[in-house]
Amino acid sequence: MNYKELSKAQQKAELEEQKKIYQKYKDAKLKLNMARGKPCSEQLELSMPMFDLISGATNLQASVDMRNYGENLGISELREFFADFCNVSSAELILSDSSSLNIMYDNIQRAIQFGISGQPPQNTQGKLKWLCPVPGYDRHFAITELFGCEMINIPMDENGPDMDMVEHLVENDASIKGIWCVPKYSNPSGVVYSNKTVKRFAALAPKAKDFRIYWDNAYMVHHLYNEDIPLLNLYNEAKANNNEDMVYMFGSTSKITFAGAGVSFLITSPANLAYLLKLIGIQTIGPNKINQYLHYLFFQNEQIPSLMLKHSKILTPKFELVDRVLTQEIGSSGIMSWSKPKGGYFISCDLLPGTAKRTIVLSKECGVIFTPAGATYPYKNDPQNSNVRIAPTFPPFNELEVAMKVFATSAKISALEALI
Amino acid sequence: MNYKELSKAQQKAELEEQKKIYQKYKDAKLKLNMARGKPCSEQLELSMPMFDLISGATNLQASVDMRNYGENLGISELREFFADFCNVSSAELILSDSSSLNIMYDNIQRAIQFGISGQPPQNTQGKLKWLCPVPGYDRHFAITELFGCEMINIPMDENGPDMDMVEHLVENDASIKGIWCVPKYSNPSGVVYSNKTVKRFAALAPKAKDFRIYWDNAYMVHHLYNEDIPLLNLYNEAKANNNEDMVYMFGSTSKITFAGAGVSFLITSPANLAYLLKLIGIQTIGPNKINQYLHYLFFQNEQIPSLMLKHSKILTPKFELVDRVLTQEIGSSGIMSWSKPKGGYFISCDLLPGTAKRTIVLSKECGVIFTPAGATYPYKNDPQNSNVRIAPTFPPFNELEVAMKVFATSAKISALEALI
Repeated sequence: MNYKELSKAQQKAELEEQKKIYQKYKDAKLKLNMARGKPCSEQLELSMPMFDLISGATNLQASVDMRNYGENLGISELREFFADFCNVSSAELILSDSSSLNIMYDNIQRAIQFGISGQPPQNTQGKLKWLCPVPGYDRHFAITELFGCEMINIPMDENGPDMDMVEHLVENDASIKGIWCVPKYSNPSGVVYSNKTVKRFAALAPKAKDFRIYWDNAYMVHHLYNEDIPLLNLYNEAKANNNEDMVYMFGSTSKITFAGAGVSFLITSPANLAYLLKLIGIQTIGPNKINQYLHYLFFQNEQIPSLMLKHSKILTPKFELVDRVLTQEIGSSGIMSWSKPKGGYFISCDLLPGTAKRTIVLSKECGVIFTPAGATYPYKNDPQNSNVRIAPTFPPFNELEVAMKVFATSAKISALEALI
Repeated sequence: MNYKELSKAQQKAELEEQKKIYQKYKDAKLKLNMARGKPCSEQLELSMPMFDLISGATNLQASVDMRNYGENLGISELREFFADFCNVSSAELILSDSSSLNIMYDNIQRAIQFGISGQPPQNTQGKLKWLCPVPGYDRHFAITELFGCEMINIPMDENGPDMDMVEHLVENDASIKGIWCVPKYSNPSGVVYSNKTVKRFAALAPKAKDFRIYWDNAYMVHHLYNEDIPLLNLYNEAKANNNEDMVYMFGSTSKITFAGAGVSFLITSPANLAYLLKLIGIQTIGPNKINQYLHYLFFQNEQIPSLMLKHSKILTPKFELVDRVLTQEIGSSGIMSWSKPKGGYFISCDLLPGTAKRTIVLSKECGVIFTPAGATYPYKNDPQNSNVRIAPTFPPFNELEVAMKVFATSAKISALEALI
């Protein structure tokens, strides 16, 4: 039954019904957390054989002594491995420690403090603006908010961001210094940017010479159905347009090996790398090369695609469970639509406008924590108060089912309250 | 024979003599590098048993799952370990990845970009100044130079920096935002700050509320003779004066376990930590907790003092060799004095004023690279052109002897040229 087509009396009756169900869950005194896109323990076990590759007897002296100082670009073995994997040259790739977010933060900081591409420091350029395809990744938005950039929402559809809007803004406003993109299995919508979208990005002619595309390819190999939804290589497309200085392409093994102890990398032009290296050489004594070498050795034994297939066998049933519970519980009530991603870490739900916050509060009062409503928008401000990000990867299977039932019931109550 | 007391003719004869010796070394086509304070392979081997503590079967789930996201303060096990070791509370300590230099850089950046202690961002406060005890650590100076701070030389003696000068400047000039200190086995002079010096630091009443002491205790356990030259705990001294917000105390295992893959930490007030944590939570997804846990496990098996004794058995003969060669070669010529440190990584040489650069160039032309003259001063500008930092730890024993002979011969030639 479509809730909107019910009479007020029917809506009230249904609300009472749902409240009874809700009370049952409340009495169960649940304590579940669905808030973050973390790998589960079973996934983390997959990479434990990495540690069998090293022992007191192992030689950690290959291209360099992995235990000593230096090598701010990362070790050549792993640079070449990831460069091959991403179809770029190793001269276009720098490795870093586990957090690619940290490279993004530092790159923004450097542009603001010191300037890039021969431009003055951005903190001397007045108002700074940043484009934010929505819904998007809360931790991206937190960085640009911290640095005081005015964030501009860019609507997304199944092909990626609204490129008419992106082109118009980037090509006419020199205060726009960057855009956040999760181009594959986008966080949270699951969208993979179309070839046309990528080509339009690669052909951008920004008004600001110090504009950068922050291309966070966090889910490049994170397929759910052993099917790779292809994404054009933005760096190579931009290079074909002599536009490679505009691109920062990020990746990491956070959700391939260990979320807190992986390896991250940045692909960009040799000119950009030379600039960054000068600053990195002052900032640090070098990345953890032992961890880089362990990853290199591990990926010789365990091919990334086969490893990711093992991940998907753990994750796909969780994604399908969420879809099944929502289909059963929400049915034809017409109060929610949700994504059916082919990869990545999230399911994006669009609730009846105005009801997302109330749904999250009701779930929380029932002992189930979801990502806060609004988190997928800059300034945590979802103008529709409608989008909620579901992160099915971390909780155990049985908890996930209950959590999603609580969520669905909370959404129904919120919707009925709003309609009445 | 004291070179200065020779007649011109005698000086010329001695110069010809030394040039012949120099040519002999040149003919040997040496290729030696004495530039950096890196541990040698033998030292790095000492910590390889760390990797025997983990395997596919090892449980990496202790206080938290070490393999997953989070814990920006570091894991409680290792925080408590280092807090005990340093006689502070774990609420006053944050762990980071291998590079303590990176924490220093980031803390300066944060003060400049965002402000600290409720003060406006330092990049809105006009000219910034920084105090630099000399000779000092080139990588410290490189950071404050990058951030555009005017660096002021502070002379050092056997008790540490000239505290009359430090107090006068810090207490009267609000543009002074920090001071670099390596308080124990100082880089490069080997000085350990006296109790009186530490107490005067702890009692500073800076004009700038956002002034910080960058107390880089890099060599806290790096004794050469199984004798700990005691250093007062600046943080606890400052705390006794309600002055703990002024102190950043740094340490790392770079020269305890692995130079590129250790663990670093910062000790400061809970108020400072709360501020830093807010920013760190936006900057990164967390430190490498697997590495932290490995260090924790390793230090249960291998006590730090006994590990450092093993290091000293490798290093002390190298330091003594340098001293022996210099004593033999320089003798009573009166052209050089040098430190005889009880710990740390360096020997500091004071050459005849005006001859340091020429000495380094001559050594280089002979195939032996030393730390560039001037490196121990801000802006690489040693006003006396006299100080050279010798780093005896990395080269093999036999190379070290030749390298030091080349250095001594080069110093003698430079001195005689200057005198003639």
